[in-house]
Amino acid sequence: MAQHGPRLVVPIDVTKKPREQKLPLHNRWHPDIPPVAEVRVGEVFRVEMVDFSGGGITQEYTAEDIKYSDQSVVHYLSGPIRVVDEDGPAQPGDLLAVEICNLGPLPGDEWGFTAIFDRENGGGFLTDHFPAATKAIWYFEGIYAYSPHIPGVRFPGLTHPGIIGTAPSMELLNIWNEREKELEENGLKSLKLCEVLHSRPLANLPSTKGCLLGKIQEGTREWEKMAMEAARTIPGRENGGNCDIKNLSRGSKIYLPVFVEGANFSTGDMHFSQGDGEVSFCGAIEMSGFLELKCEIIRGGMEEYLTPMGPTRLHVNPIFEIGPVEPRFSEWLVFEGISVDESGRQHYLDASVAYKRAVLNAIDYLSKFGYTKEQVYLLLSCCPCEGRISGIVDAPNAVATLAIPTAIFDQASNL
Amino acid sequence: MAQHGPRLVVPIDVTKKPREQKLPLHNRWHPDIPPVAEVRVGEVFRVEMVDFSGGGITQEYTAEDIKYSDQSVVHYLSGPIRVVDEDGPAQPGDLLAVEICNLGPLPGDEWGFTAIFDRENGGGFLTDHFPAATKAIWYFEGIYAYSPHIPGVRFPGLTHPGIIGTAPSMELLNIWNEREKELEENGLKSLKLCEVLHSRPLANLPSTKGCLLGKIQEGTREWEKMAMEAARTIPGRENGGNCDIKNLSRGSKIYLPVFVEGANFSTGDMHFSQGDGEVSFCGAIEMSGFLELKCEIIRGGMEEYLTPMGPTRLHVNPIFEIGPVEPRFSEWLVFEGISVDESGRQHYLDASVAYKRAVLNAIDYLSKFGYTKEQVYLLLSCCPCEGRISGIVDAPNAVATLAIPTAIFDQASNL
Amino acid sequence: MAQHGPRLVVPIDVTKKPREQKLPLHNRWHPDIPPVAEVRVGEVFRVEMVDFSGGGITQEYTAEDIKYSDQSVVHYLSGPIRVVDEDGPAQPGDLLAVEICNLGPLPGDEWGFTAIFDRENGGGFLTDHFPAATKAIWYFEGIYAYSPHIPGVRFPGLTHPGIIGTAPSMELLNIWNEREKELEENGLKSLKLCEVLHSRPLANLPSTKGCLLGKIQEGTREWEKMAMEAARTIPGRENGGNCDIKNLSRGSKIYLPVFVEGANFSTGDMHFSQGDGEVSFCGAIEMSGFLELKCEIIRGGMEEYLTPMGPTRLHVNPIFEIGPVEPRFSEWLVFEGISVDESGRQHYLDASVAYKRAVLNAIDYLSKFGYTKEQVYLLLSCCPCEGRISGIVDAPNAVATLAIPTAIFDQASNL
Amino acid sequence: MAQHGPRLVVPIDVTKKPREQKLPLHNRWHPDIPPVAEVRVGEVFRVEMVDFSGGGITQEYTAEDIKYSDQSVVHYLSGPIRVVDEDGPAQPGDLLAVEICNLGPLPGDEWGFTAIFDRENGGGFLTDHFPAATKAIWYFEGIYAYSPHIPGVRFPGLTHPGIIGTAPSMELLNIWNEREKELEENGLKSLKLCEVLHSRPLANLPSTKGCLLGKIQEGTREWEKMAMEAARTIPGRENGGNCDIKNLSRGSKIYLPVFVEGANFSTGDMHFSQGDGEVSFCGAIEMSGFLELKCEIIRGGMEEYLTPMGPTRLHVNPIFEIGPVEPRFSEWLVFEGISVDESGRQHYLDASVAYKRAVLNAIDYLSKFGYTKEQVYLLLSCCPCEGRISGIVDAPNAVATLAIPTAIFDQASNL
Repeated sequence: MAQHGPRLVVPIDVTKKPREQKLPLHNRWHPDIPPVAEVRVGEVFRVEMVDFSGGGITQEYTAEDIKYSDQSVVHYLSGPIRVVDEDGPAQPGDLLAVEICNLGPLPGDEWGFTAIFDRENGGGFLTDHFPAATKAIWYFEGIYAYSPHIPGVRFPGLTHPGIIGTAPSMELLNIWNEREKELEENGLKSLKLCEVLHSRPLANLPSTKGCLLGKIQEGTREWEKMAMEAARTIPGRENGGNCDIKNLSRGSKIYLPVFVEGANFSTGDMHFSQGDGEVSFCGAIEMSGFLELKCEIIRGGMEEYLTPMGPTRLHVNPIFEIGPVEPRFSEWLVFEGISVDESGRQHYLDASVAYKRAVLNAIDYLSKFGYTKEQVYLLLSCCPCEGRISGIVDAPNAVATLAIPTAIFDQASNL
Repeated sequence: MAQHGPRLVVPIDVTKKPREQKLPLHNRWHPDIPPVAEVRVGEVFRVEMVDFSGGGITQEYTAEDIKYSDQSVVHYLSGPIRVVDEDGPAQPGDLLAVEICNLGPLPGDEWGFTAIFDRENGGGFLTDHFPAATKAIWYFEGIYAYSPHIPGVRFPGLTHPGIIGTAPSMELLNIWNEREKELEENGLKSLKLCEVLHSRPLANLPSTKGCLLGKIQEGTREWEKMAMEAARTIPGRENGGNCDIKNLSRGSKIYLPVFVEGANFSTGDMHFSQGDGEVSFCGAIEMSGFLELKCEIIRGGMEEYLTPMGPTRLHVNPIFEIGPVEPRFSEWLVFEGISVDESGRQHYLDASVAYKRAVLNAIDYLSKFGYTKEQVYLLLSCCPCEGRISGIVDAPNAVATLAIPTAIFDQASNL
Repeated sequence: MAQHGPRLVVPIDVTKKPREQKLPLHNRWHPDIPPVAEVRVGEVFRVEMVDFSGGGITQEYTAEDIKYSDQSVVHYLSGPIRVVDEDGPAQPGDLLAVEICNLGPLPGDEWGFTAIFDRENGGGFLTDHFPAATKAIWYFEGIYAYSPHIPGVRFPGLTHPGIIGTAPSMELLNIWNEREKELEENGLKSLKLCEVLHSRPLANLPSTKGCLLGKIQEGTREWEKMAMEAARTIPGRENGGNCDIKNLSRGSKIYLPVFVEGANFSTGDMHFSQGDGEVSFCGAIEMSGFLELKCEIIRGGMEEYLTPMGPTRLHVNPIFEIGPVEPRFSEWLVFEGISVDESGRQHYLDASVAYKRAVLNAIDYLSKFGYTKEQVYLLLSCCPCEGRISGIVDAPNAVATLAIPTAIFDQASNL
Repeated sequence: MAQHGPRLVVPIDVTKKPREQKLPLHNRWHPDIPPVAEVRVGEVFRVEMVDFSGGGITQEYTAEDIKYSDQSVVHYLSGPIRVVDEDGPAQPGDLLAVEICNLGPLPGDEWGFTAIFDRENGGGFLTDHFPAATKAIWYFEGIYAYSPHIPGVRFPGLTHPGIIGTAPSMELLNIWNEREKELEENGLKSLKLCEVLHSRPLANLPSTKGCLLGKIQEGTREWEKMAMEAARTIPGRENGGNCDIKNLSRGSKIYLPVFVEGANFSTGDMHFSQGDGEVSFCGAIEMSGFLELKCEIIRGGMEEYLTPMGPTRLHVNPIFEIGPVEPRFSEWLVFEGISVDESGRQHYLDASVAYKRAVLNAIDYLSKFGYTKEQVYLLLSCCPCEGRISGIVDAPNAVATLAIPTAIFDQASNL
């Protein structure tokens, strides 16, 4: 009897630490991190991954691990994976199409967590309102998640990888480092937004602290050099990366630009479920997990399908197709926000401020049903709620909405 | 045989000008605009409305009317409508629940338009890219719209009123005028966003020009005084207003705060269809139309259900429930943007910039299929596309997405 | 200002009787009924229709009109409508594609009824259980219907025409009359099903009683001859006709075989909503209404797309495409039936018996929530419930299911 | 680190034969088959199962194994599983609620088959049209299935167990045996349906041939007695069993009547996907698989929620709730059938005949797109198509429809 099913190319043992995995992980983007596996177009293969913190955040009911969590080590990624077809490896300028055939938690590890980072250690979208670290543990029953820390709620997950991206070229990496350094150095005085959004730091520049570069041996000269260049994984960028698009679930297809030979894509930061915006930052239901993937290479696809939106031909973004299997909700409660902040000050067409007010409105409303505001903040980070930009032209107010499926609650939550 | 069906409380004759309608229209928010009709809770009634421009924009294929359109007269609203129950009129502090039982174009007037305002006369989300006025006319075939100006596209409308809102109290009106004046006066130097978003003016302060105040006779002393106080209808605010929430279609319910006796709600700016963000500003399929509505009064509902999000108890926002009847699309093409602008500059967690880049990406992609970029810009303003805030915490990049249902195109638009 | 919107080709005045309408109606299928209107392919036109009983069943709360309703006059149809393109009228062998662009109740006549026919006057699927005539009146609030006779229920309609069909040729009409006469004469002794299903009569053969043939003058020799040949409209047949496919709503497309020059299609029996099976027979929410339609002619389409399934090339059936706008329900309660009847007797793979048991199970279950069984029987006839053939091969039992959307009930109806 | 995830209560090794599994399987219903496992309410547990044929049908491309397949051994079931709560085991008269938290193929065994049984060895719904045995092998890529034998088709599975049921009491078993024996002996002369539907035999009465009774040792006196009483698993019955309800997927809940202490439910016949009706009989994509389940006991629930529909209180049927995760299709092509058979003969309100004609219409239509009719017959058995009873009262014709989601085809299949 022939064996069927996906070939396992990156195995994970969740009883081991990130640095002890059979194939080395990495937590930075750099062109010179060597691939740990090779796949052919058309084959279905399996990639396993640790949770984004690599086990740093535990099932303990205390939030101490969140409070002092080491932000320098996130996110632990599986890969890079080199992709080849009959003409050889993917080349810069190609598009890499990655289909998510299946995904889920790792068998035997069916749990996850949602947390609020401390204001002094990462913060989140509402840090000025919720500065203290806290945590909820979720347990999975097949497609459903429930948490002893947020009773009365149970919902099916729209599971997805928070991060999937290709390796940047050195040219692209330099672009990233320059623009983020400029922000870090001059952002506070130039951008008023910071007062309202409040997270610190403004950007996370390369550093050797906590840096993991796969097969590159820590402490070597090569590692030292690369660590000072390698981009942190926190923001989504031109290569995809931490896009946190909650609908990238089963059946979705991701068209990633290729910047280096082999494409060398990596993935991680598995989410059992996430709300649009992932507002509490550590906000999805974070877990270990697996992906079953299938790749195609579209030769010359970058030029054919992507248009640079910036000063170089590298200023592009991935394109996605959403898969056909999502939880079906019929009733939604919708909260609206406008770009006037909590002090009453008017901002000009600022969708971030508008969304902040929508989320605050939702938190206050739902807290009338017996939840603490922290519980609702956690819940809106991880449940399948939708954040929309409804109006972005009606000066001076942007209008954003947050839509919550009422079926996630045991009790009626309607007016 | 008894007559059934909704009672017509605001009739419109589209062959007449806005100032000639049987019941006077208004185009400002002010507490002292007298109601033109009264309805009881529980009854189904019909409100008709002119298009937002009151016929100023025509079916002519030229865009001259758009180029020089008079921004001072928009939006023409039907109302105010006073709501009473067995205990009398709605009172400040109540919530007014308005159910949209049905809606549509006015019989015999089944057409609409989508336009780009000139950069010097209103502009839009992408004015820096598309500065010139242009227009597309749409014709309706029942639930479907098609345009001779954007061939190869036909889609079912998710029809909704762009504007529905209650009359503000004088206290709330003052809050609006003060904060918007502050922005108009100091915004350019304090907010860097303007360089990128570019529409002018920053805000639209009260003015007598074009002002229409319903039953208040133009030119009287009362009118003069009110006109200098009355808020323009362009932005959505605490009273609802121009929210442009594209899913507020048949079966939706809107919970509006009540600020004056009778609630005195008004509605207008009917959209046959709109994309999230309404990016070209005159961006929905604008049309005349009708609403069939049913109201409830929730006594004391503001305190019970809404939480002030600002310095006064008036800093609230409406809540919505989405109806059960929407076009069903199964395949979506998703474009992503990050908060790096077209010059390559990094912005900090700025969802507006991220969404701008997502829209630009989509325009360039779709223009590869035989459309001009202006056609796509118009199309993304009015087709049922979804604008999402995917990530708002992964500093420094906000991630926004624009999802387009592929079924609106005759031809395959996939990669 | 140009007039837009559909051209009205068949007007109805609901204050008049069927025989007094401006364009004559008909209630039989016959090739020689002359068309009352002509339409061109591509144009959107409007057809209005009386309710199937032509006003015979009233808003009175008594069921007397149902009990003695005249079965000989149903269904009053609008048409025939002749269809032409640039090559002339549709011809036998063509396919007529009819798109439903829009539909609804007639303005001012927004009400309907659902009834159980008396066992001795038509009966229904469960006549042996519910032999007495009864009736519920429904009122419409836009997309919603509610009934004072079935309190606690309100649901959005999936509105559709029960009947749409082309005129049969004489050859096809003869086939119908022969096979139905054979059943009427020999059915009782040959088909055991009758004992269980119980409606009378087995078939409704042509008769002059109540016969209405459009422009053919009643009482003339031509009328006498045609009336004795013309098929009753009760069953669906090769020409479409009374298919009662509840999903044929806005945006649907119907591909009808053409048997006579011009296609000469007719339509009627408008349903605000219907459950699969329309179990109480007069079971949908019956109403007057309108359709906005657009036609295409596919020349030679019968041979190209339809395959005869019987002894002649006329033994074909229409094909349909379902439109994109339907009420969205997320939770369904499903009742199952197997082909064992209420006496405990085993039937062989009989889906009708299985469905009967599923409906009976649902009625008994829902009657535990405060409804009478007659109320539930009426409700399952007209609410958007789905009847499925789940298993048709697992001898000896067919398995059928009835799925009911729980959102139609005010109260929880779950176990 | 604690282990999470479901407890494995019935393991399967697909490299072994059914009789060699660690826990014995069974292929009959009988009250005295001892449970192989016990579960507590509230716990999530995992049940694995062989495919219905226990490996008898292979991945070989020949259909020889189908042609001579041993019908006496099907279906191999996992269980019985005894259910207890804090008050002890489930008791007759209770309802057993089984929630399907998750399910899928067994890892490493991601393939399945769809087959047509030979007319002389089981047959199917269309045996008179397709008498010869044939087979298609399907391979799974995560949520998708494709077959080298039906090229151009790929679709997401709506995976479900074909069989889930509780053990019958002796009283219920006797009812089954008596009514099926009566059919077997007298059916041919009393039921005209047989001529049209044609499968043989009419029923499958108990027999020792191929009989497997779990822990009951084959060949013992107890086994001999039980084998002569134990019901075959082919038809769905009052205990649930082979219901083939294709929507019983993730998140569904099944309310099963309890007839013996402990409920002793069994499950098997896993389907990666099935069309309504499972028309080719071996018609789903048959596979091995697993279920993750969670049980509740509703004490006294049979009397409270189920109403007997027959001569005893045991004549009941299960109730179901459909889960929230199903593939989303937006375009459907719908084929209609009426109860006139292929010879042109009229049947009276016979939904089975109507559905047969709808399936035949669909097969002929789709065969115009390059498929053989056998390929389409197989495809309609296993793809997620919907079989509806549209009209069951419009004498003499029942109207049934078959709706096919067009997205399963690579090429356009529309008219």
